[in-house]
Amino acid sequence: MEEFVVRPIGVVRSELKDPADAPKQGALTGQEAEIVVDPAYLAAMDGLERRIATAETAGCGDEGNRKSGKIIVLCWMHGADRDRLKVHPRGREDRPERGVFSTRSPHRPNPISLHTVTLLSILGNVLRVRGMDAIDGTPVVDIKSHSPELDG
Amino acid sequence: MEEFVVRPIGVVRSELKDPADAPKQGALTGQEAEIVVDPAYLAAMDGLERRIATAETAGCGDEGNRKSGKIIVLCWMHGADRDRLKVHPRGREDRPERGVFSTRSPHRPNPISLHTVTLLSILGNVLRVRGMDAIDGTPVVDIKSHSPELDG
Repeated sequence: MEEFVVRPIGVVRSELKDPADAPKQGALTGQEAEIVVDPAYLAAMDGLERRIATAETAGCGDEGNRKSGKIIVLCWMHGADRDRLKVHPRGREDRPERGVFSTRSPHRPNPISLHTVTLLSILGNVLRVRGMDAIDGTPVVDIKSHSPELDG
Repeated sequence: MEEFVVRPIGVVRSELKDPADAPKQGALTGQEAEIVVDPAYLAAMDGLERRIATAETAGCGDEGNRKSGKIIVLCWMHGADRDRLKVHPRGREDRPERGVFSTRSPHRPNPISLHTVTLLSILGNVLRVRGMDAIDGTPVVDIKSHSPELDG
C-alpha cells in the first residue's frame, strides 16, 4: 500500500523529560504542558480560543461542544517500537500480552498518540494544556476540536 | 523538523463511495462499515474481541472502559488538501472560515482523521463497525482502545 509523509506542526514542551517519568494514561494526572505550534501554521489555530476552558468547564467538560474546554492533540511517539504487535498492558509484566490495537501503548505500527486535553490558555503560537502525558520534545502532528458527542 | 512515514495497516470498506456522499460528522448517522486489517498485523488485533459491543452497551457506551463497545480508528484522508489552513466549518459557506485546528475538517497539514466507532463484530482480519463516515478505500493507519475516562 501507498505510504504517506507526516510533517510535525509543533512540539510538546513539558517538565516530563524522560519516558520513564511519563505516567501511563497521564491524562488522568492533570499534567500541564505547552504545545508550541510552528508559526507557519498560525492561521490554522484561528478559532481555538473559543475552546479555552472557563472556570465552569475546566473541571468537567460535558456542558456541550463549544465550551467543553477540551481539544484533541495527536503526537508522533518517536521513541516507539513500530515492530511490536503485542505488549503487556500499561507496561505491567504481570498482565498477559495483548495486541497493540486493543491498547493505548505508544508501541504500534504507526506511533500516533491521541491526547484529549483541557485547553487552559493561548499566547501567540503556544497553547497551554492540562492532561498531557507526552514528554518534552514530542512532535505534534495535529490538533482537532473535541466533541463529547463524537468522541465520548 | 524531522518527517515520519505512515504505512497503512488496513482499509475501510463502505457503501459510501464518494466524498460527496460522506456525511459531515457521520458518526452520528450510524453508518456501518468494515475495517479490513492487513493480515500482517493480525497479532496486533488480539484483545479487540473484548471490545465488541453487547446488546447492553451498543446503544450507550458509558458502562466503563472494557465494555464500552467503542474503539478509535485513525485514517489517512488521502483526498485532503494539506495546504488549507482555514475552512468553512462543516463545509457551510455561510459560516465564517476558521482555522482547521479548531475543526474536524479532513483538510489539514497531516490529514489524519479520528473516528470513535462501535465495534459490532470481528471475523478474522475484518472488523465490522458502526458510526464510520470515511469513504470506501480510505487507508486506516491505527486502531486504539477507547476509554470514556480518557477520551470523553
